[in-house]
Amino acid sequence: MGSYEKKLREFLLQGDRNFLPHISIDCVIFGFHDNQLKVLLLKWKDQGSWSVPGGFVKRKESLDASAKRVLKERTGLKDIFLRQFQVFGDPHRERGKKSFKIIGTSKSWIMDRFITVGYWALVEFSKVTPRPDWLSDECQWWDVQQIPSLIYDHNSIVTKALEALRLSLNDQPVGYNLLPQTFTMPELQRLYETILGVSLDRRNFQKKMLALDVLERLPERKTGGAHKAPFLYKFDKKKYERAMQKGLSFGFQ
Amino acid sequence: MGSYEKKLREFLLQGDRNFLPHISIDCVIFGFHDNQLKVLLLKWKDQGSWSVPGGFVKRKESLDASAKRVLKERTGLKDIFLRQFQVFGDPHRERGKKSFKIIGTSKSWIMDRFITVGYWALVEFSKVTPRPDWLSDECQWWDVQQIPSLIYDHNSIVTKALEALRLSLNDQPVGYNLLPQTFTMPELQRLYETILGVSLDRRNFQKKMLALDVLERLPERKTGGAHKAPFLYKFDKKKYERAMQKGLSFGFQ
Repeated sequence: MGSYEKKLREFLLQGDRNFLPHISIDCVIFGFHDNQLKVLLLKWKDQGSWSVPGGFVKRKESLDASAKRVLKERTGLKDIFLRQFQVFGDPHRERGKKSFKIIGTSKSWIMDRFITVGYWALVEFSKVTPRPDWLSDECQWWDVQQIPSLIYDHNSIVTKALEALRLSLNDQPVGYNLLPQTFTMPELQRLYETILGVSLDRRNFQKKMLALDVLERLPERKTGGAHKAPFLYKFDKKKYERAMQKGLSFGFQ
Repeated sequence: MGSYEKKLREFLLQGDRNFLPHISIDCVIFGFHDNQLKVLLLKWKDQGSWSVPGGFVKRKESLDASAKRVLKERTGLKDIFLRQFQVFGDPHRERGKKSFKIIGTSKSWIMDRFITVGYWALVEFSKVTPRPDWLSDECQWWDVQQIPSLIYDHNSIVTKALEALRLSLNDQPVGYNLLPQTFTMPELQRLYETILGVSLDRRNFQKKMLALDVLERLPERKTGGAHKAPFLYKFDKKKYERAMQKGLSFGFQ
């Protein structure tokens, strides 16, 4: 029995000593780069199918700490700002779960029902280097428009995470660490359009962005284009962070 | 041994046959009436402390179905639109959990660590009649400004639920089933002010509400006041439901 088989056997037979039963974590990591929105997926060695990176909660670990650890263990990504967005608790959500050949049918805690807590994050995907863990053959970015068929309810988890990402644009700024330090309003608009998957009206967009009060306009303009040089902006870090903290302006206030 | 003791003993010793271990549900029910915002609390017979109504997930039951059942069993409230808002997974969240005298220390599944899934709802509190279940002495509405000290992290759960309720006003209309069938703009504004806990600017409020496009202005005005009679509005049910479904307009679209 190879090292993978040994490790897998131990994990399947004894994992429940370390982990809470029935509760899992799934992380939907969106990557933005060059006006593309991608999602990070793992291909399992044993089951041969794609999934979002997921794992389990240690018996004395907080849920948020589990999410960070799971993401790091499974993909190598660390220092990522993860946000809990929804729990998936349908009793049939893992329909089609295959038993692991190595230990035979339904002998493992892993074959029980799991309720999973979903987390999402948005990163600049050229800035991180995902690598598969020992359970996976591959760890790759997939275009959000071309996601393959995933295990269990993971396609629906990705869809709900995308809704949560899009909703977050109503309450919080986005772009820090995703755009170059200085950028034009059209560049910022393309980021929003890429995330939302729609075209936006240029003037309305500019008006709303300026009203958020997180941008600073620079004295110099962008040079080199054929047209009139557009203004350059950067994020005011303090105001940006305050807006992230505040989370929302309750629209009505 | 009385009937309460028998029931409790069975619940504590055998509940885990019916329920998933380590996972609970907590429901934060807000009640609006006459410009007051309240929250529904239960007083436990055995532990003598107040909590939000909570319970456990049956082994083959969906999380959402559990929340509905738990709320009905514990308070008598049914047909309530519950929304999941957050999972509370700190390993120390149940600090101070008391063992139940009837079975002695830590012999029950209920003494294990629980991760709890929070749900919230908003109802017109004069329209529902809560009643305590067999585990509780009392089931009462408390003003959100005067919530007593609750067990575990329940004060923090109520705070987070109130944030979720307030945030929902950014994305969804509110008021149906809370206001009379026809109402004035100031009446609607007072509902929002009560939920948000702040005063709002009259003109901005009116502008935003009309922009939501869920109101229908009636031909007649309200009569009987000393001042110029204000317009009467009602919700356009179709538009209101569409806005609830849509959930959000992604602000930027």
